[in-house]
Amino acid sequence: MRAVRVQEYGKDPVLEQVPDPAVAGPLDVLVRVDAAGVCRTDLHIIEGQWAQKSGVQLPYTIGHENAGTVVDVGDAVGNVAVGDKVILHPLVTCGLCRACRAGDDVHCEDSRFPGIDSDGGMADLLLTGARSVVRLDDNLEPRDVAALADAGLTAYHAVRKAVPLLYPGAHVVLIGAGGLGHIGLQSLLALTPAEVTVVDLAEDALGQAERLGAHHVVQAGGEQVAEVLDLTGGKGAHVVLDFVGEQGTEADGVAMTRDAGSYFVIGYGGHVDIPTIDVISREINLIGNLVGSYNNLVELMTLAAQGRVRLSTRVYPLDDAIAALHDLDQGAIPGGRAILVPEA
Amino acid sequence: MRAVRVQEYGKDPVLEQVPDPAVAGPLDVLVRVDAAGVCRTDLHIIEGQWAQKSGVQLPYTIGHENAGTVVDVGDAVGNVAVGDKVILHPLVTCGLCRACRAGDDVHCEDSRFPGIDSDGGMADLLLTGARSVVRLDDNLEPRDVAALADAGLTAYHAVRKAVPLLYPGAHVVLIGAGGLGHIGLQSLLALTPAEVTVVDLAEDALGQAERLGAHHVVQAGGEQVAEVLDLTGGKGAHVVLDFVGEQGTEADGVAMTRDAGSYFVIGYGGHVDIPTIDVISREINLIGNLVGSYNNLVELMTLAAQGRVRLSTRVYPLDDAIAALHDLDQGAIPGGRAILVPEA
Amino acid sequence: MRAVRVQEYGKDPVLEQVPDPAVAGPLDVLVRVDAAGVCRTDLHIIEGQWAQKSGVQLPYTIGHENAGTVVDVGDAVGNVAVGDKVILHPLVTCGLCRACRAGDDVHCEDSRFPGIDSDGGMADLLLTGARSVVRLDDNLEPRDVAALADAGLTAYHAVRKAVPLLYPGAHVVLIGAGGLGHIGLQSLLALTPAEVTVVDLAEDALGQAERLGAHHVVQAGGEQVAEVLDLTGGKGAHVVLDFVGEQGTEADGVAMTRDAGSYFVIGYGGHVDIPTIDVISREINLIGNLVGSYNNLVELMTLAAQGRVRLSTRVYPLDDAIAALHDLDQGAIPGGRAILVPEA
Amino acid sequence: MRAVRVQEYGKDPVLEQVPDPAVAGPLDVLVRVDAAGVCRTDLHIIEGQWAQKSGVQLPYTIGHENAGTVVDVGDAVGNVAVGDKVILHPLVTCGLCRACRAGDDVHCEDSRFPGIDSDGGMADLLLTGARSVVRLDDNLEPRDVAALADAGLTAYHAVRKAVPLLYPGAHVVLIGAGGLGHIGLQSLLALTPAEVTVVDLAEDALGQAERLGAHHVVQAGGEQVAEVLDLTGGKGAHVVLDFVGEQGTEADGVAMTRDAGSYFVIGYGGHVDIPTIDVISREINLIGNLVGSYNNLVELMTLAAQGRVRLSTRVYPLDDAIAALHDLDQGAIPGGRAILVPEA
Repeated sequence: MRAVRVQEYGKDPVLEQVPDPAVAGPLDVLVRVDAAGVCRTDLHIIEGQWAQKSGVQLPYTIGHENAGTVVDVGDAVGNVAVGDKVILHPLVTCGLCRACRAGDDVHCEDSRFPGIDSDGGMADLLLTGARSVVRLDDNLEPRDVAALADAGLTAYHAVRKAVPLLYPGAHVVLIGAGGLGHIGLQSLLALTPAEVTVVDLAEDALGQAERLGAHHVVQAGGEQVAEVLDLTGGKGAHVVLDFVGEQGTEADGVAMTRDAGSYFVIGYGGHVDIPTIDVISREINLIGNLVGSYNNLVELMTLAAQGRVRLSTRVYPLDDAIAALHDLDQGAIPGGRAILVPEA
Repeated sequence: MRAVRVQEYGKDPVLEQVPDPAVAGPLDVLVRVDAAGVCRTDLHIIEGQWAQKSGVQLPYTIGHENAGTVVDVGDAVGNVAVGDKVILHPLVTCGLCRACRAGDDVHCEDSRFPGIDSDGGMADLLLTGARSVVRLDDNLEPRDVAALADAGLTAYHAVRKAVPLLYPGAHVVLIGAGGLGHIGLQSLLALTPAEVTVVDLAEDALGQAERLGAHHVVQAGGEQVAEVLDLTGGKGAHVVLDFVGEQGTEADGVAMTRDAGSYFVIGYGGHVDIPTIDVISREINLIGNLVGSYNNLVELMTLAAQGRVRLSTRVYPLDDAIAALHDLDQGAIPGGRAILVPEA
Repeated sequence: MRAVRVQEYGKDPVLEQVPDPAVAGPLDVLVRVDAAGVCRTDLHIIEGQWAQKSGVQLPYTIGHENAGTVVDVGDAVGNVAVGDKVILHPLVTCGLCRACRAGDDVHCEDSRFPGIDSDGGMADLLLTGARSVVRLDDNLEPRDVAALADAGLTAYHAVRKAVPLLYPGAHVVLIGAGGLGHIGLQSLLALTPAEVTVVDLAEDALGQAERLGAHHVVQAGGEQVAEVLDLTGGKGAHVVLDFVGEQGTEADGVAMTRDAGSYFVIGYGGHVDIPTIDVISREINLIGNLVGSYNNLVELMTLAAQGRVRLSTRVYPLDDAIAALHDLDQGAIPGGRAILVPEA
Repeated sequence: MRAVRVQEYGKDPVLEQVPDPAVAGPLDVLVRVDAAGVCRTDLHIIEGQWAQKSGVQLPYTIGHENAGTVVDVGDAVGNVAVGDKVILHPLVTCGLCRACRAGDDVHCEDSRFPGIDSDGGMADLLLTGARSVVRLDDNLEPRDVAALADAGLTAYHAVRKAVPLLYPGAHVVLIGAGGLGHIGLQSLLALTPAEVTVVDLAEDALGQAERLGAHHVVQAGGEQVAEVLDLTGGKGAHVVLDFVGEQGTEADGVAMTRDAGSYFVIGYGGHVDIPTIDVISREINLIGNLVGSYNNLVELMTLAAQGRVRLSTRVYPLDDAIAALHDLDQGAIPGGRAILVPEA
């Protein structure tokens, strides 16, 4: 089969022929990849930033946002059948540890992450497990949802955790309305009655946010903290969702949070640096957010099937994978996510 | 009446005669102060560290941990009567804002804090409000509980917030087993089934922690993070309660927290500085903690009446208030809190 | 002033002149009643059904759904001023008991209920307290929201309690889409992403439910349980909200609830009778629901100001109060609530 | 191997030789049964009360409270190894449905229940699955904990659900301090700071409850509701845990519950019959309780290993199984649970 393989860090990956993977274990599921999202994390992997953290051996196949069709299953698989259209939770988890059994499979004590630490989905086939496959509603196509598997799921998960804090009259600020952020915005509007303010540098992103239903938009450019305070009676927001997490949004996010409020970190790259006297005198919380659970992904697919969460995408044939990576690197995929399909 | 008044920042306060306060408003309560805790915050006030934050006009009376006997009440007061023994919640709150009505009176939008921003309780009398008085059980004396009004209540509040995270088998680390910490420890043992490890520099404090029931103690001195990781199978604790919040405990606390765990900041003085990639990849939370609510204080008084939370105290007559402040400043109140009483 | 007074149980109340009430206590608020809802409970009061429970002395003024304009306030009132438009929480509460201080003022240990156990709002003026008044947004008129003060607040409160159970993909059944139910439906759609099925006998009510956004409607008439099971894959709903509570909906509601689900009782008149083996083997919950808290009412007013919750009303002048009660008794107020206004 | 088999409903089961079970599937675990609890449910099975509900084919082996030693495992089993001492969660669950993945494996959509609907553990060997085995701490022996697998786990689970309601000063009533109840009592004291009142008919049970730490005991005999009201200032308890669920405790339990409180049904046999007006005007909850989850069982084993939960047991050799069942039927196992062991 074809696969996009990292051969050497710092160089373009190579689309090459590799042997087909095959079902070996009783809970294995073999999927024909009908759609694979191209993500900024792929660029970071290629640059080598994840080399130490993942410990993966080169060469290997990238691609961690995958959807497709089941083509073979192990003996003990009962939840999907050959021919089912599926989206893949990014982790393959054990199902036996406390975390897996408590609804927190992301913190599984014995998981792997295809596309990060083992072969991923920028290929014709991907081997995953029964615990990772979510059957798609008939009205959803793999190419429309693949990028929800990781990026979208992260955004949804953060919103889901904020739901108990967001009653009618509560205010939530969303910093960064790009790929993750615009899914976060749609999730907020579907799940909560809160008043939503979106902060971004880009006018395009703010325009899209308004069309999606944001109640207020604020262009970042120096006065964004003051504008959020104005919008919130001088008190700040009950919840701030930071999809950037670098270049100053860390301090902005804390400053936009009201006393007794919560600042959710989702994007990364920078530092949070707060005096402990501020943490305690303002009694604020800083909440970390990773990708969502399997059940979260099922819920997000429900919203997608209902039309409440929509991704804008640009489709590339798998043969053009390297070009898609280049386009992303050069910022040339305006307003959407690049999706690889077997043939376009 | 006598009152301990700050006349000028940077100088000793003065015990002097001032006019008696009197009930003026319908919800006022006038209390004879039978016991006033002496707290490290009093030293910071005297040094002028709170001058800007509190905005209080000098001279004024300090003392924010008070218990005593009701001597007069306003027309609309129905919850206490003259002669009742009471402990005073440190804040006088409005009762009308959303926070007050949601059980979070500490974040009242219109409160005052006697002893910080208005006249406090190192005096013969203190004027407070009906919303601030908790009647004491017959088996409790003001001098035994006064220091629970603020310091103890802060410790209890943090523990109370951690309860949902602490199931049998969960591990909690308590950093700093001094005045607040040893109340936190007793609260943990009363409210949760968790395994408790106490970290402190002082052997005395560790010895007291063991006698109170800590399951493990670790002496800080360089290897405390490694020792906590050893005690927790290399994973860290589900909850870390940091009663110090400076001098390196901020980084220790984060390092001792397991993935998906929570680091509670209670002490202050330092900085928390974490890369956002660690916040998200480890999905950890940083939880700020201020003093507890009125209902929390009622609960803490229940534990005190049951004998499950005990303070060790050293009693000084009010006339020796300045000496008590000096002793505290010089660290000469071993293993306990200084309590001022009208005559000792 | 004019007032609608019950003189004798079993007879029509009388519109008569009575002395104006006046501010007496420091927290009193005197309101000119601009709109008073007419409720089925008023009919039950007139019939004498509440005589023993309320213990009220005749004659007295009914009317427990009130909105209007502040005309005088006591000395200690700071949250509203003369001229403010307000809606009144139905209870006047103490603000000092644990329940009031925990966000559960409905279970105040020392409350009164104007219109039930003391003089109510079918009059020109009503005396209430500072803790009961919610300022209205500029775009809301008393006559548009008065009936939300009790009936609407009860519906909203039940929905609010169900929010943690209602994720995308969860199913909620709403039995009875009348006065309370149609507010419950709008609240569900504003606060949750759940799939909503409405069950009612009346085609009109079902038509209105569909226009408001219900995902499915089921006409009661014998097959309603089977139809709900069909809609839920044979499992029943995660949450059933029963706004009827009599005439068989009690058994239907339990039967429509899935294992580990919750049946919310809001309407009343009948009995719930379940074998304990069913309660435990199905691990179902039965959740009682009374009127909402003050903070709930503020939230509901936020939804009303945002246009997400709308009541249909029919306006009567106060002088026609008895006619309005007769119309309600004869079912002649189709699709809406009767509202009394000083002059129409 | 030997097995206690029901041959015909209404007759004694028979201890007979049957073929040894063997590992077949990849997640199978074969356990040598070192201890099997004898439970009142076994008597009900023998009488035929469960025939229709379980749909099991006769003959089959009973026994649903099992602990022992792993003797063989399937290919995909990684969480236990041959030689491990284990206790068995009573259900064998799928691990793939939403409930299994949300920490609620008891409501698994595809589970079986050995000893109820398939061959159980009153035998030399039992075949179970990897998801059902909990490794025992070195200081625990199968015979000491087997009866915690179902009865104890049910009691623990109910207490665990009540934890958020039980703060210092809250009152909990426990009706029925027998086999389940005395585990519930120990769990309450380990997990919560609440004040505990135990109600039972038997003086023995009340004496044991006092020795275990109950704060109050009330002998049932007509005045138990009044006595509980006396102990709770006339208001009733915040939580009532009913381990009986028949013969009048259903009505007692509701009457002992305070307004806004919760009545937990754990025992069964009777009916709960409440007017809906009481449910809503008192805003009470009725909470069903089934057996606990796998994670709950791990937690309960932690409490057992810490010595905080102890069972009193009487040991019978497996060859005397029928005698043990007779003794239980005749009430001749005072103060404890009968446990079958291979040889005693």
